[in-house]
Amino acid sequence: MSGVEPSALREILALTSHSRVVSFAGGLPDPELFDHEGLRLAFERVLAPGARHVFQYSRTEGDPELRAAIAGRLGRRGLPTAPDDLLITTGSQQALALTAAALLDPGDTVLVEEPCYLAALQCFGLAGARVVPLPAAGPLDPDLLGELVRRERPKLLYLIPNFQNPTGRTMTAHLRYEVARVAADHGLWIVEDDPYGELRYRGEPAPAVAACPGAEDRTILVGSFSKILAPGLRIGWLRAPHGARRALHIAKQTADLHTSTLDQAAVAAYLAGGRIDGHIAGLRQAYASRMQAMLEGLANALPDGSTWSTPDGGMFLWVRLPEHMDAEAVLPAALRHNVAYVPGSHFFTGRSDPACMRLSFTAHPPERIADGLARLGAVLQGAR
Amino acid sequence: MSGVEPSALREILALTSHSRVVSFAGGLPDPELFDHEGLRLAFERVLAPGARHVFQYSRTEGDPELRAAIAGRLGRRGLPTAPDDLLITTGSQQALALTAAALLDPGDTVLVEEPCYLAALQCFGLAGARVVPLPAAGPLDPDLLGELVRRERPKLLYLIPNFQNPTGRTMTAHLRYEVARVAADHGLWIVEDDPYGELRYRGEPAPAVAACPGAEDRTILVGSFSKILAPGLRIGWLRAPHGARRALHIAKQTADLHTSTLDQAAVAAYLAGGRIDGHIAGLRQAYASRMQAMLEGLANALPDGSTWSTPDGGMFLWVRLPEHMDAEAVLPAALRHNVAYVPGSHFFTGRSDPACMRLSFTAHPPERIADGLARLGAVLQGAR
Repeated sequence: MSGVEPSALREILALTSHSRVVSFAGGLPDPELFDHEGLRLAFERVLAPGARHVFQYSRTEGDPELRAAIAGRLGRRGLPTAPDDLLITTGSQQALALTAAALLDPGDTVLVEEPCYLAALQCFGLAGARVVPLPAAGPLDPDLLGELVRRERPKLLYLIPNFQNPTGRTMTAHLRYEVARVAADHGLWIVEDDPYGELRYRGEPAPAVAACPGAEDRTILVGSFSKILAPGLRIGWLRAPHGARRALHIAKQTADLHTSTLDQAAVAAYLAGGRIDGHIAGLRQAYASRMQAMLEGLANALPDGSTWSTPDGGMFLWVRLPEHMDAEAVLPAALRHNVAYVPGSHFFTGRSDPACMRLSFTAHPPERIADGLARLGAVLQGAR
Repeated sequence: MSGVEPSALREILALTSHSRVVSFAGGLPDPELFDHEGLRLAFERVLAPGARHVFQYSRTEGDPELRAAIAGRLGRRGLPTAPDDLLITTGSQQALALTAAALLDPGDTVLVEEPCYLAALQCFGLAGARVVPLPAAGPLDPDLLGELVRRERPKLLYLIPNFQNPTGRTMTAHLRYEVARVAADHGLWIVEDDPYGELRYRGEPAPAVAACPGAEDRTILVGSFSKILAPGLRIGWLRAPHGARRALHIAKQTADLHTSTLDQAAVAAYLAGGRIDGHIAGLRQAYASRMQAMLEGLANALPDGSTWSTPDGGMFLWVRLPEHMDAEAVLPAALRHNVAYVPGSHFFTGRSDPACMRLSFTAHPPERIADGLARLGAVLQGAR
C-alpha cells in the first residue's frame, strides 16, 4: 500500500485545539453554531419507544427517506436527481474512497488541481493510482487540461468547483462547461467534490459540473452534511450516473455494509422537520461576517507584497507571502504566539510554493479573528 | 475491480423480510431482543444540552472511553489489551476492509476456511488478492494447513474460530495453538474474526488465537457490537499488533476519517452504564432456547440420512441433506411455503456441496422455529 499521511497536519490540529490558540488551521465547523437542539429533537423522534429498526441492519444504498430528501434538495438547486441516483456514505471521505475503489485500477492516472485537498488524494493513492497535478496558480486552464489529458491519459479528474480547499476559488460557469466538454471528448470520469457548495456568501451559484452537457453520465458528485449540519455524524452521499452504480454499491457493501441506520434516520428526520434551510442561512451569515473580518484584518497583518484570495464562500482563504518568505519556517514562532495556520506545502503533491498558507475563517467569531491576525502580523513582521 | 456480489443472498433476505415467512436465512439479530430502552437512555445522556462534541469531528482511532471499555472487556476474557491496541471501525466489515487495505497487495494470497462467510472475502478480492480455500469438511487440519502454506505462500489466514459462519463450528484450544505455531513458522498474518464469541450457550471458551504463543504479534482480532448490542450503529473494532497499526490507521483515515462520534459516545455510555453483561446473558438465554428448539425439530424435519452441526453458540446450524438432494433447487418451493434458508453454495468460493444449507436460529422464538421446520420438512419430503 501507499498513501500520503498528513501527520504533520494532524499535529497542528492537535496543538491548536488548545483554547488559548486562535487557530486558522483546521477545516472544522464551529461547534457553537451547531443546531444542537434541532439535532437532539431529531434523535429523540427516531429513538421513540418501539422504533427498533433504527438499531437494525439496513440497506447498503441508504435510508430511502434521506435519499429522497437529498434528491429533492439537489433538484431545487438545479440538478434533477432521483433517490436511486444517490448512495449514502459514511462521510464524503468514504464517497471518495468508494469512487476510487469502483473506478480505479492500480496504475491508472488521476488528474488533480494543485494545490489540492490531500486527504482526497490518499484514496487515489491507496487504490494504486498515479496522481498528476494540474498546476493552477490562477483558474484552471481548459487548454492545459486538454493537453494534459492527451499526454497523461488519465481515467479521472478530481475537482472542488465551489470554494476550493485550500484556495477558496470557484470555477466559473464557462469553465465548468469547458471541463465537461474535455471530459466528454476524452472519456474522462469527473469527481465533483462539493462539501462547501451551500456555504455561499455572495454572488450567484454556477451550475454543477454534473449538470453540464457531456458530463452528465461521467460525473460522480460528492456531498456531505459535515459542513452544514454535523461532521461527527459522518453522513455524506454520492450521486452517480447509471454506469458506475453497481461497482459503487459493491464497494460500499464491502467497505462497511451500510452507514449508521440511526444517524441516517435522524438526519432524515431533521430534514423533514424543516429547520435545515434556516440553519444554513444562519451559518452563511455567521461565516460571511467571519470571512469579512479576516479580509479586513489581512491588509494590516500581512507584510507588503502579500496577496490573498477573496472567496465567494466556503471556509478558506489562500495567502501568498512575499517571495522570500517561508510559511512553514514561520509556523513554530506563530504557534509560540498562539496562532496557527496550515503551510501551503500541505496541499501540494510535488514541489510546493513555500510562501503560501491556508487560513480558515470559520472557527472563531470576528473579534477572535482580529486578535489572531494581530498576533500573526507581529510574528510575520519579526520574520521578514 | 473484482468482487463476489452475494446478490442472490440479498434477494433471499429481501424476500424473507415479509412477516409471513419463517426465515432461517438471515444473519440478523432479533430486534425484539434489542435493549431499546438502555440504548435510548445512553443516547439521551450523550445528547444532553451542551455536549456539542458528539456532533464534531473526532479522532481516527476512536473514542478513548470506548476503546478503554473494550480493552477492559477483552482483558477480563483473558486477552490483556491496552486502549492503544484498538481501532474503532464502522462495523466489523470495515475492520476486514481496512485489514485488506493495510496488509495486502494485489496478487497476494489469502487462505480461508471453506465453507466461509463470503462478504469477508469481498474485501480480499477488492484488494486484488487471490483467495485459496482450505477444505474443511471437518475441523481444520493443521498438517494440511502447513502443507498449503508451504505450497501457496499466503500472506494471511482468515478464520472465524468461534461458532463459524456458516458451519457453527468452534476451533479447539489445541487447534488454535497449532494454527498459531504454523503462522509463526511461516510469517503468516492471521485475521481472527470474532463477531459471535460472546454468544456461547454451553461449554468453556477457548483462548483467542491472538493469545496463543507465536500469534500475538501477527494476529488482527476483529470484534463488533452488531450481534450483542445493535448492528444498525455500525460499531466494530480491531485489535492489532504494533507492526500493523500505522498502516491500519492510514487506511481508516482514508476510508471515512473516523466512525460516528455520536454512536461511539453512546456505546461508551451504554457500556459505562453497566447493562451490557446482563443484556448479553439475556441474549444467550433466548438464543440458546432457540437453538435447542431447532435441534429438536431437525430430526423430524430433515430426510433420513441428513446430518447437521450442533454448535456451542453463535447464530447458525449447518445441514447436509442426503447425497442426492440439492438445497438450491429446493429453495423456490420452500419460499412458496413461506420458509427460507441459505443454500450452502453461497459459502463456497469454488465447487460447492449442493446438499448443504445454512439455518439461522436467532430471528424467531421457539414456536415459530418449530412451525418453520414443519414447513421445511414438508417441502423436503416432497423433493426427495
